[in-house]
Amino acid sequence: MNPSLLKSTLPLAALLLALPVMGLAQDAAAPAAEAAAEVVEAATPSFDDIGAYVMTTFLFLIGGILVMWMAAGFAMLEAGLVRSKNVTTQLTKNIALFAIAGIMYWLIGYNLMYPGDGWTIVGYLGTLFSPASLEPVGLAADAASLDYASGASDFFYQVMFCATTASIVSGTLAERIKLWPFLIFTVVLTGVLYPIEASWQWGGGWLSEMGFYDFAGSTLVHAAGGFAALAGALILGPRIGRYKDGRAFPMPGSNLALATLGTLILWMGWFGFNGASQLAAGTVGDISDIARIMANTNMAASAGAVAAMVLTQVTYGKVDLTMVLNGALAGLVSITAGPLDPSLFGALLIGAVGGIIAVLVVPVLDKLKIDDVVGAIPVHLVAGFWGTMIVPFNTADTSYVTQLVGFVSVGAFMFVLSLIVWIILKATIGLRVTAEAEMTGLDQAEMGMEAYPEFAKG
Amino acid sequence: MNPSLLKSTLPLAALLLALPVMGLAQDAAAPAAEAAAEVVEAATPSFDDIGAYVMTTFLFLIGGILVMWMAAGFAMLEAGLVRSKNVTTQLTKNIALFAIAGIMYWLIGYNLMYPGDGWTIVGYLGTLFSPASLEPVGLAADAASLDYASGASDFFYQVMFCATTASIVSGTLAERIKLWPFLIFTVVLTGVLYPIEASWQWGGGWLSEMGFYDFAGSTLVHAAGGFAALAGALILGPRIGRYKDGRAFPMPGSNLALATLGTLILWMGWFGFNGASQLAAGTVGDISDIARIMANTNMAASAGAVAAMVLTQVTYGKVDLTMVLNGALAGLVSITAGPLDPSLFGALLIGAVGGIIAVLVVPVLDKLKIDDVVGAIPVHLVAGFWGTMIVPFNTADTSYVTQLVGFVSVGAFMFVLSLIVWIILKATIGLRVTAEAEMTGLDQAEMGMEAYPEFAKG
Amino acid sequence: MNPSLLKSTLPLAALLLALPVMGLAQDAAAPAAEAAAEVVEAATPSFDDIGAYVMTTFLFLIGGILVMWMAAGFAMLEAGLVRSKNVTTQLTKNIALFAIAGIMYWLIGYNLMYPGDGWTIVGYLGTLFSPASLEPVGLAADAASLDYASGASDFFYQVMFCATTASIVSGTLAERIKLWPFLIFTVVLTGVLYPIEASWQWGGGWLSEMGFYDFAGSTLVHAAGGFAALAGALILGPRIGRYKDGRAFPMPGSNLALATLGTLILWMGWFGFNGASQLAAGTVGDISDIARIMANTNMAASAGAVAAMVLTQVTYGKVDLTMVLNGALAGLVSITAGPLDPSLFGALLIGAVGGIIAVLVVPVLDKLKIDDVVGAIPVHLVAGFWGTMIVPFNTADTSYVTQLVGFVSVGAFMFVLSLIVWIILKATIGLRVTAEAEMTGLDQAEMGMEAYPEFAKG
Repeated sequence: MNPSLLKSTLPLAALLLALPVMGLAQDAAAPAAEAAAEVVEAATPSFDDIGAYVMTTFLFLIGGILVMWMAAGFAMLEAGLVRSKNVTTQLTKNIALFAIAGIMYWLIGYNLMYPGDGWTIVGYLGTLFSPASLEPVGLAADAASLDYASGASDFFYQVMFCATTASIVSGTLAERIKLWPFLIFTVVLTGVLYPIEASWQWGGGWLSEMGFYDFAGSTLVHAAGGFAALAGALILGPRIGRYKDGRAFPMPGSNLALATLGTLILWMGWFGFNGASQLAAGTVGDISDIARIMANTNMAASAGAVAAMVLTQVTYGKVDLTMVLNGALAGLVSITAGPLDPSLFGALLIGAVGGIIAVLVVPVLDKLKIDDVVGAIPVHLVAGFWGTMIVPFNTADTSYVTQLVGFVSVGAFMFVLSLIVWIILKATIGLRVTAEAEMTGLDQAEMGMEAYPEFAKG
Repeated sequence: MNPSLLKSTLPLAALLLALPVMGLAQDAAAPAAEAAAEVVEAATPSFDDIGAYVMTTFLFLIGGILVMWMAAGFAMLEAGLVRSKNVTTQLTKNIALFAIAGIMYWLIGYNLMYPGDGWTIVGYLGTLFSPASLEPVGLAADAASLDYASGASDFFYQVMFCATTASIVSGTLAERIKLWPFLIFTVVLTGVLYPIEASWQWGGGWLSEMGFYDFAGSTLVHAAGGFAALAGALILGPRIGRYKDGRAFPMPGSNLALATLGTLILWMGWFGFNGASQLAAGTVGDISDIARIMANTNMAASAGAVAAMVLTQVTYGKVDLTMVLNGALAGLVSITAGPLDPSLFGALLIGAVGGIIAVLVVPVLDKLKIDDVVGAIPVHLVAGFWGTMIVPFNTADTSYVTQLVGFVSVGAFMFVLSLIVWIILKATIGLRVTAEAEMTGLDQAEMGMEAYPEFAKG
Repeated sequence: MNPSLLKSTLPLAALLLALPVMGLAQDAAAPAAEAAAEVVEAATPSFDDIGAYVMTTFLFLIGGILVMWMAAGFAMLEAGLVRSKNVTTQLTKNIALFAIAGIMYWLIGYNLMYPGDGWTIVGYLGTLFSPASLEPVGLAADAASLDYASGASDFFYQVMFCATTASIVSGTLAERIKLWPFLIFTVVLTGVLYPIEASWQWGGGWLSEMGFYDFAGSTLVHAAGGFAALAGALILGPRIGRYKDGRAFPMPGSNLALATLGTLILWMGWFGFNGASQLAAGTVGDISDIARIMANTNMAASAGAVAAMVLTQVTYGKVDLTMVLNGALAGLVSITAGPLDPSLFGALLIGAVGGIIAVLVVPVLDKLKIDDVVGAIPVHLVAGFWGTMIVPFNTADTSYVTQLVGFVSVGAFMFVLSLIVWIILKATIGLRVTAEAEMTGLDQAEMGMEAYPEFAKG
């Protein structure tokens, strides 16, 4: 460990010491409040079942739109962080993976993730090819499950999560992977891999029965995507010239305005990602919880950005914008596993540690010669681990062991299965463009279309 | 027809064969469900009239914001698809047309479109100069029409549709039309032309009485804008150097990152465009229908993008990003006429055909030497035709003949009237910049301000 | 005053003459309507208290997301209007200030702004270091203040306003201020300065008791930010080469596509800024008022853009895109003090005057050698003055004198306190980069990272 790394680890240690205090008062208060809520709900003149159904459905729709918008965030972030010769390809991957997710999650994923009656292999296979069906037009109130929401709104919301998982992968593997193998991997990821691991928790599977807690997907979405990306990066290898003579050579992104825009889009979309994961909006308790979640989400992102900013100033003597962006994103990923229970101060600490992780893990990956073009592994995988593991500090009835089991299980599943798929793709149609194409740029070599054809290269 | 065109028509034919099956079960179930809904609504303890009014008004406001956001989508899409020497001009046109629509639709359009008492020439003239009036501040509950929504929210939502129609025109005519003639056309389009044809259906006019069905405006907005653009393109002629010796020379867009951003903005905004066109959100049936609409809208866009991607790969041997973008948009336009009734599978087929249309129509326009800079005619006019004509497969009580009559009527009206306005503008103040200005670029010649003044041209 | 300036003042005068008529009918109707509303609300079968709480909370969440999105708008606007050598720095400032606001407003600002029990120095100090606390998880209905909304949602909404105030400052001071002094100023502004002056009105302080009226913050947010920027610009001085031999030399922005995108983002976000400032969404009157507000907001922006467009054409013989953008923004600022009461025609006039102000004030600042890189002073300060002062034309129970007292008080407070902070920063760590760094560009000199490293400079 070099001195600057050591120096920057100190604030991390200090923060870790502060963590145990931040959720205790909360934890004590929560169960009493919940009990009180139950008594009152029976007595109060009420916003009736139909109102709750309408509001929860509306929540899913607004939330789904915001999470869809994250696809634009990833597209801009990645387009800004690759070199200009690969921008068209990166844009194509991003819009294509979103479209593919929209189809595959319907064709296979949704039924695989929510198998309905029973959790059996038969149930799996039985629903595998039965596409998700929407309610009839003009659904009658007594035909609806008034304790939840429109099934179509649930599908609309869930399909966006599936797409987000795929978005995480594309950034890591940029600038060297061929278009079609990447898209085929996306088909498998969105149709099969993500739905299976997500069903373990959100489909009522064994992780949820065991008490695993992952509110909006630090593990199930972000780390899962990160593990798929990590497997791909290992199989694919680094870009030519990225590591030489034991040193890492940075390859600066071509458009930091787009990268910043992408980050702010993701920040915005995350309010839907975390907020609507409350899955209900029709009671005083639910809508207030959503407000807690959004306030905490914003705080964690802010803290992640500030922590990364201060840390890069202290460590490198200069603020690094791309680290500030990744710090904000890592703060967001960190709070995602448990955005409801922490206080604002707790959210600040969780997010700040996330931001520090984003900065510290980058040189570690470089040491290991794992070439992660946009920093998706620090941001989504490692900060996802942190976010998942800190949950028991703030959330009653959760345990560190269970959190670890959940994270490791999802991680192992995603890593091994992804590795197999990447290996098969490599062995068959090939994963990587030729060295010549990589030097020329994928846009000319693969797509025959440049993103900025008129701007001279400096 | 050349061989590659023929080859790419085959999947189209296959899809068309599959169409009749996709909506039948739906059609049978719908009326029964609606009848059941009516009975139940009387009996169920209910989310009362005030709640419904509040929710529907909220729907219009959220929907209006999302459709407003589409103006940014068009601006970015078009700024990305023109050459850098014309970007400032294109941006100016886009923000100016949106602002002009906001004023003209208030000054004339809204009252022209919703004439209120009776459908007479007198009614037209009577309301022509009476600006839309909003409700009094602090509207009393018993003074409101509780079966609908705030009139101001309705106006807010409708004005955004008017602006969308104008946005479609600017892309086709880019890089050669003068600023002010374009803006004057926009005044006529948003103040008079759009409101009149839209009133035929949405103002309770003769098309709606005849049974024409256009849920959110495949014909009334998209094809209408496309016809206005087509008329302009014919009068204006192609850009210099676009067609020579019987060949078409592509003029690549200067910033595909912006074009992709614009497409994703439009995709996002379309959830408001189609979803809030349900015009009600205060019952279980309405909010569930909105969820159906949004799920179908996302599916059609996804299918359009994937279809265009596969088709360009098969036809040209390379994926064409601009075609993927237009494929997604064409999928969106296609589903817009009837986003409620199809199943997800139906939406997939409708959108896929739209995406295929976007790809196939481009060479046809080139053959006809119609220079459509951003592909608005394939995307909005031709896919709008497809979306309008496929409605009867899925929606009860609609007929192909009526759909055709509606499309042709709107098309003829928009085309002829637009043609007349374009011809008058050409004959008076002139439509087209000089050849020299066109070569230099409109930004320097017309605006004296470049969009990217510091970036050297390659 | 030169002739072209005089010429362009004429329409302004004409508009001013029209103003007194536009709000009178409204004023007469409003109190009666409100009285009627009170009677009816007791009698009508109702959307109960829980529904109102849920809707108002939801309003704050949606509104907060939209105002958060304005941070991206400012970032893109400013990144587009600075030269490419300063883009990374400008992006860093924008995301950092937003993050800092998120932390400081929680740490100090929120409690300072809403002191709760009593308005005393003791109350100030007592709450100064008690961070805003959110409700307990799963809030019980009878523990909630059902006449308002979730406290967390209120915090979420308010923190975004605080960030907006800070965003206004960064644009004016661009291209020459050092990163850290700017960020330290942001700490003071978001933690102390903004919360104090905003509390005078929105915290129930002396301005609100006096009858000052500023619906969504023409004075409290926009002019306040403008005064902080003005103080900074005076201390900092103009950029090198900006004024020479009595002439002003324009320094064109490097990316007008981003500037236009930023403006459209701000336009969109403003619907949340003004709309959710109604602070209630659970009655027919409230939701209809929000609809009025949004319709008026859109109209004022449209009118500001069109007025600036026409005025630049008339004055300079060419439409100036950056003026159109600032015209739209000035229209938005102008309507912000009173977006509820005017008719659409009133909103048009208010916005148009705002747009004219944006154009006319620029040469005045240049005459005074105040270098405002993005035009934030005309747009936020001067149009904010106009918007504040026009309120009594439309809103009953307001007075010009009180409006003037409010504006001057806030302005003097912000200007003097900001000036002191800027002077202290200048005297200690220094405010301005070296002349050499300014010529090289802040991105290389301060950040060591260019925004567009591959694009050659022309």
